[in-house]
Amino acid sequence: MRVGELSRRTGVPVPTIKYYVREGLLPAGELSSPNQARYDGSHVRRLRLVRALVEVGGLSVAAVRDVLEAVGDPGRPVHEVLGAAHDRIAPRAVGPDDAAREAARRQAAELIARRGWRVEEGNPAVRSLADALAAFNRLGHERFSEAALDAYAGAVERIAAADMAYVARKAAREDLVESVVVGTVLGDAVLTSLRRLAQVDASARAHGRDRPAAGE
Amino acid sequence: MRVGELSRRTGVPVPTIKYYVREGLLPAGELSSPNQARYDGSHVRRLRLVRALVEVGGLSVAAVRDVLEAVGDPGRPVHEVLGAAHDRIAPRAVGPDDAAREAARRQAAELIARRGWRVEEGNPAVRSLADALAAFNRLGHERFSEAALDAYAGAVERIAAADMAYVARKAAREDLVESVVVGTVLGDAVLTSLRRLAQVDASARAHGRDRPAAGE
Repeated sequence: MRVGELSRRTGVPVPTIKYYVREGLLPAGELSSPNQARYDGSHVRRLRLVRALVEVGGLSVAAVRDVLEAVGDPGRPVHEVLGAAHDRIAPRAVGPDDAAREAARRQAAELIARRGWRVEEGNPAVRSLADALAAFNRLGHERFSEAALDAYAGAVERIAAADMAYVARKAAREDLVESVVVGTVLGDAVLTSLRRLAQVDASARAHGRDRPAAGE
Repeated sequence: MRVGELSRRTGVPVPTIKYYVREGLLPAGELSSPNQARYDGSHVRRLRLVRALVEVGGLSVAAVRDVLEAVGDPGRPVHEVLGAAHDRIAPRAVGPDDAAREAARRQAAELIARRGWRVEEGNPAVRSLADALAAFNRLGHERFSEAALDAYAGAVERIAAADMAYVARKAAREDLVESVVVGTVLGDAVLTSLRRLAQVDASARAHGRDRPAAGE
């Protein structure tokens, strides 16, 4: 298909497609004449993946390029690709190395030990967890870890089990890796949206209303 | 305290503090002489809140300003402030209005009905949920909703209950609203980090390893 058809099928404007090709996010089409390229189903799929990572996942173009390079490199273990993806998704915290951060590191390590999770200390998610807990601590929410963290942990164990069951049926490595990356990025978006809805519901129940008031 | 002390206590560089004052994120200090301002504990706290929203939550300066305005307006109901915060956190999806989105809207509405959640159709989280599900659908993961969505929903119900229990002890409105905003933004960061760790653990167990290999 020509670029116009590719644009029509994916909803991505032609100039954006050309930009992605220049930036290495999308392989160039096959030249059918000096100034006309042809695209196929693999371009449609790749373009949808790029858009999902950018629009739903909120990744930058540079982050998407890194993640796609990792996905496409058969020499890299799946957990490394996942680490690269997560590194690109998690905002980099640069808060001070203070008592709040020290306490947060301990809270994270204790939680991991308590749950018996098999993760290395150097995993980037351990750092982002400690960063988030440190921010809670600095704002006077030191009790959050003690009060709510195990409920969160129990909940994500159920989610991880569902994730594993979902990707288990993928046989080919590239499909598997892509599923994991998509599941990670889009799954986060699903999870945070659902959390908001469950909060609204819990709040409505706590205030004893049968249904939300009009206009809410 | 002077601006240098404020910087030392929060780890935020002086030029950044001045930028936040110019942008309206931080009230100006009280002028003690024509070119010297004094700051107090309320500035420390506000600055920590701004940094948490920017660094951990990944919000833009404009988004933080909107959220803080909503928090500070006593006339706005809590759920509206939360909606404003969520609107600013969720990336705006602009995917095509295709069959995948239509299916996603239906999947989201059916889930909400199935769980008996009391949320209005117009809630921004319903839209972001449908956006994320539409992206899954477009990438050939139509089965995700059916296979994993109820496990996710069950998990967030537990999380929302923990959130409610945590904020219930806040009496003053401003404290309550701030807790909800902080809990929403930082709680998302905690949740996605934990999800990653639980995935790593589930993957290690599935591959039958007693502990992660060195360097992993």
